[in-house]
Amino acid sequence: MTDPRHNSRDIFPPTGPEITAKSWLTEAAMRMLMNNLHPDVAENPHELVVYGGIGRAARTWQDFDRIVAALKDLEADETLMVQSGKPVGIFRTHKDAPRVLIANSNLVPHWATWAHFNELDRKGLMMYGQMTAGSWIYIGTQGIVQGTYETFAEAGRQHYGGDLKGRWILTGGLGGMGGAQPLAAVMAGACCLAVEVDETRIDFRIRTRYLDAKARTLGEALALIADWTAKGEAKSVGLLGNAAEVFPELLARMKAGGPRPDIVTDQTSAHDPLNGYVPAGWTVAEHRARRETDPQAVETAAKASMRAQVEAMVGFWNAGVPTLDYGNNIRQVAQDEGFDNAFAFPGFVPAYIRPLFCKGIGPFRWCALSGDPEDIYKTDAAMKRLFPDNAHLHRWLDMARERIAFQGLPARICWIGLGDRHRAGLMFNEMVASGELKAPIVIGRDHLDSGSVASPNRETEAMQDGSDAVSDWPLLNALLNTASGATWVSLHHGGGVGMGFSQHSGMVIVADGTEDAARRLERVLWNDPATGVMRHADAGYPIARDHARAMDLRLPGILGG
Amino acid sequence: MTDPRHNSRDIFPPTGPEITAKSWLTEAAMRMLMNNLHPDVAENPHELVVYGGIGRAARTWQDFDRIVAALKDLEADETLMVQSGKPVGIFRTHKDAPRVLIANSNLVPHWATWAHFNELDRKGLMMYGQMTAGSWIYIGTQGIVQGTYETFAEAGRQHYGGDLKGRWILTGGLGGMGGAQPLAAVMAGACCLAVEVDETRIDFRIRTRYLDAKARTLGEALALIADWTAKGEAKSVGLLGNAAEVFPELLARMKAGGPRPDIVTDQTSAHDPLNGYVPAGWTVAEHRARRETDPQAVETAAKASMRAQVEAMVGFWNAGVPTLDYGNNIRQVAQDEGFDNAFAFPGFVPAYIRPLFCKGIGPFRWCALSGDPEDIYKTDAAMKRLFPDNAHLHRWLDMARERIAFQGLPARICWIGLGDRHRAGLMFNEMVASGELKAPIVIGRDHLDSGSVASPNRETEAMQDGSDAVSDWPLLNALLNTASGATWVSLHHGGGVGMGFSQHSGMVIVADGTEDAARRLERVLWNDPATGVMRHADAGYPIARDHARAMDLRLPGILGG
Ligand SMILES: NC(=O)c1ccc[n+]([C@@H]2O[C@H](COP(=O)([O-])OP(=O)(O)OC[C@H]3O[C@@H](n4cnc5c(N)ncnc54)[C@H](O)[C@@H]3O)[C@@H](O)[C@H]2O)c1
Ligand SMILES: NC(=O)c1ccc[n+]([C@@H]2O[C@H](COP(=O)([O-])OP(=O)(O)OC[C@H]3O[C@@H](n4cnc5c(N)ncnc54)[C@H](O)[C@@H]3O)[C@@H](O)[C@H]2O)c1
Repeated sequence: MTDPRHNSRDIFPPTGPEITAKSWLTEAAMRMLMNNLHPDVAENPHELVVYGGIGRAARTWQDFDRIVAALKDLEADETLMVQSGKPVGIFRTHKDAPRVLIANSNLVPHWATWAHFNELDRKGLMMYGQMTAGSWIYIGTQGIVQGTYETFAEAGRQHYGGDLKGRWILTGGLGGMGGAQPLAAVMAGACCLAVEVDETRIDFRIRTRYLDAKARTLGEALALIADWTAKGEAKSVGLLGNAAEVFPELLARMKAGGPRPDIVTDQTSAHDPLNGYVPAGWTVAEHRARRETDPQAVETAAKASMRAQVEAMVGFWNAGVPTLDYGNNIRQVAQDEGFDNAFAFPGFVPAYIRPLFCKGIGPFRWCALSGDPEDIYKTDAAMKRLFPDNAHLHRWLDMARERIAFQGLPARICWIGLGDRHRAGLMFNEMVASGELKAPIVIGRDHLDSGSVASPNRETEAMQDGSDAVSDWPLLNALLNTASGATWVSLHHGGGVGMGFSQHSGMVIVADGTEDAARRLERVLWNDPATGVMRHADAGYPIARDHARAMDLRLPGILGG
Repeated sequence: MTDPRHNSRDIFPPTGPEITAKSWLTEAAMRMLMNNLHPDVAENPHELVVYGGIGRAARTWQDFDRIVAALKDLEADETLMVQSGKPVGIFRTHKDAPRVLIANSNLVPHWATWAHFNELDRKGLMMYGQMTAGSWIYIGTQGIVQGTYETFAEAGRQHYGGDLKGRWILTGGLGGMGGAQPLAAVMAGACCLAVEVDETRIDFRIRTRYLDAKARTLGEALALIADWTAKGEAKSVGLLGNAAEVFPELLARMKAGGPRPDIVTDQTSAHDPLNGYVPAGWTVAEHRARRETDPQAVETAAKASMRAQVEAMVGFWNAGVPTLDYGNNIRQVAQDEGFDNAFAFPGFVPAYIRPLFCKGIGPFRWCALSGDPEDIYKTDAAMKRLFPDNAHLHRWLDMARERIAFQGLPARICWIGLGDRHRAGLMFNEMVASGELKAPIVIGRDHLDSGSVASPNRETEAMQDGSDAVSDWPLLNALLNTASGATWVSLHHGGGVGMGFSQHSGMVIVADGTEDAARRLERVLWNDPATGVMRHADAGYPIARDHARAMDLRLPGILGG
């Protein structure tokens, strides 16, 4: 029997101005699905895995082929429904409706566990969509770079007077998202020691210029860090090892007078104890094999290792080292394993990101369907012209252009918010219309955004009014984006932090240069971040309430009137 | 301090052809919200409670007033967002988009418990929307009559050769939904003994002609049943008592040679152990008081009582009496209380309703905004003309007209499916356009419908492929109804079976006689039931696959092509 989840084809999105679908809207969905599986983009494309453990773009290869066929065939007033990576239906809607509607990995709460998910997954009834994997707007590790950079920079401002020179960050995981950490650290001016158990991941990050060096022993890695920090050079090293072993070892050495990291975090795939986190003492090959033969043993060992790693992280925190959870739910696992103090250190959102969310600011991104990097460089320049006074944005765009290698279709990411996003979208649309760009632009965002996610251990941790777990908000966000005419809209469960711990929605819209697109862009790129300002205003954040008033939002139950 | 959830106003929807909102679409939403709280419709309107334990139409009276104000002011290209009964925002969309988008009671799965919900509810952050309470398409107990009638009739066919004459049904609960049981039983030709702890509920059912008699002792009730069944008369009695006491008592008597019920079921509010189910030995007043002062004790006692009731139900089942769970999740509570055999008897959906769902058949309903019963009688006649060969439908419409008293705005319910619903909708729209009807018609359905719910202890119990808990389907249903142009769309959690156990979506569309409405009606009333056929075809049901083919549905991943 052939494995419906394995093939040996390499997938490359078509590029250039010719389309094979019936419109740019559907061509865009097809290209972005394929781009998610581009060999330079996806972590394990032959098994449809894009990033984040087993985050997939389609349930099986047959489903992939059928999605592509359906998109090529779809009319301008039809909508394709995708259920956990399977194209289940095509229905008549209208031209202002989304062309694709997606629901991935959603489970009725009482059954929303990895155990039940994995059972359904084995039966072929489910797919894990992570955030942007199953919603076709993953753009490679670059997608996360700015978020990580903003976080490290803010941590530098809060703890080290804004200067990270000569300082170093300890972290784990160099996967799809985690691989951005060394580059983001370096951009923020710090050194980085990243512990990664899978050597191919280290090599991949070096090849794509996200990482500077590789070390096989802790001694080797620390020697490099000592050298770079002494010279004031911002550089990064990937240490081949297991974070559950290296973190405690480093803590012990620090307590014994050894080197002291300046910031500690982690981005191993702790959200998935079966497929993600490799237990201490195991090789990657062993892990892969036993996942199939003895899943229970894998989970048990992984959870025990995560507890050990979190104990070490709390050790650093207690010793005064700024330590943050980077959104992989590792504290929850450690707590479930009986470590009561697991939540001693904060998550990155309440610590550093929420003030941005209050203004609808989050990881806005766009992608050139032409495949031509020049199109992105032109949008970079145009963004600077559109926002002449935003020095932070200008600096980011310069660094990004210089340091970030494109993966797959050229793309850019920029944290901007309500009031700016629709202006950028309308500008891109005009650049397509005028022929300045060679093909349409796809505009989207992460599900980790201001108004699109309920995730009490991450994006909505410690909300001011205690509404962390209320998931009406991302559902309303998806419904409103559908009503506003986004090109595709998705609703996922379990992204980032794993089954049971989050619900979130995605939104992508195509700027094809038409007037129809302009009307939709103006609505969608206003309404989408506005739901984030609304959600935070409802929770009582003054920044959000002020921004809502400044932007003339009409929030009757929140601001009155 | 005044209670934001209590007032003494009585709410009546406006009737007649004049509107105070800017269009019939928003006027309709306003009238239906008010109709949900009509004194003849709602169970406890002064506290905003419509039905089903604490299923509410708005979070507070201030929210109610603000929703009404927002609806009156809403333009034809604007959409109001309602989050757990609170009007949180107004956004620009377009005329084919819904006018209202609603998300009620949704919680991230790990926190999706009554305990967490109640905590948020007490803080004023949440509202329980049940199914049609928070989505403004509850139409009184009549809404449930046909479903209950279909279920009892099908049970009669399966177990008693289609003849229920001289037979009697034992049940509990005469609330908003449960109150339909005696009338449905009588319509199906059976007698009914319904145990109800709250005397006001019994009196209310007698007043509205759903129940024939009241008894204060079991002896009295059984004497009536013995008399009626002997004479072959179909009549009903409400017994003032607690089901957790009466069911075991009746079982003991039966085992000792006493009277034997022919069907056993229950519709007490077991889905809500705090606010719903009254523990054995407690008065209603005591229950109401201690809910506030000692919620933990209430829950503990209620759960123990539910276990006792389910033990009795399993006793009847083991003695060969057809016994069914009527969708209140009472088996789950009993199992959680340590009664391993709680799921011995089936739920009503797999036992009797699923074959209908496979064809998209479910509780379609409509309501005359004119307030004039004549409008409904005209639609009754028109339905008979539209479906001349559907003898079952004709019989139902005749019985309904004769036996069912309207509550609030006149309405009708009819179980019809894919292929019929859009024809009915288009016909109503023409009747509005031609002036035959005095005002527009609102068309909706329960969330308990073919494609709109994931509820593993009820609507999706024992699905053929094991996909009971997959909730992608109701989310896709809501997204597609939004994309197709329903007038309001809702996504709820916890309806029917309580927190953690269900996710479901609602859809309402207005036939205002315009051509725009006709286009939307054709799309929405086709697509909505089609998602149900799709969901059941995907699960492998041959009836659904055949119906999908017969209806030319395009289901690429399911039927191929
Ligand atoms: N905060 C954010 O913005 C954000 C964004 C995306 C993802 N995340 C979270 O970060 C985590 C990583 O995401 P990803 O996309 O990089 O996942 P991934 O699966 O692509 O990468 C995880 C990496 O961790 C490595 N690893 C696993 N166990 C290890 C161990 N014990 N020691 C050292 N390395 C180990 C794996 O080999 C892999 O390379 C996920 O939990 C994800 O949800 C956070
Ligand atoms: N299967 C379906 O089609 C369907 C539809 C709707 C509701 N339901 C379920 O049925 C249940 C009842 O719904 P409802 O809207 O009528 O709720 P409700 O709260 O309006 O009525 C429940 C009634 O049960 C009575 N009651 C409570 N505890 C009792 C006890 N121990 N003994 C006797 N009577 C008791 C209450 O006094 C009340 O009148 C709910 O759980 C609901 O989810 C099923």
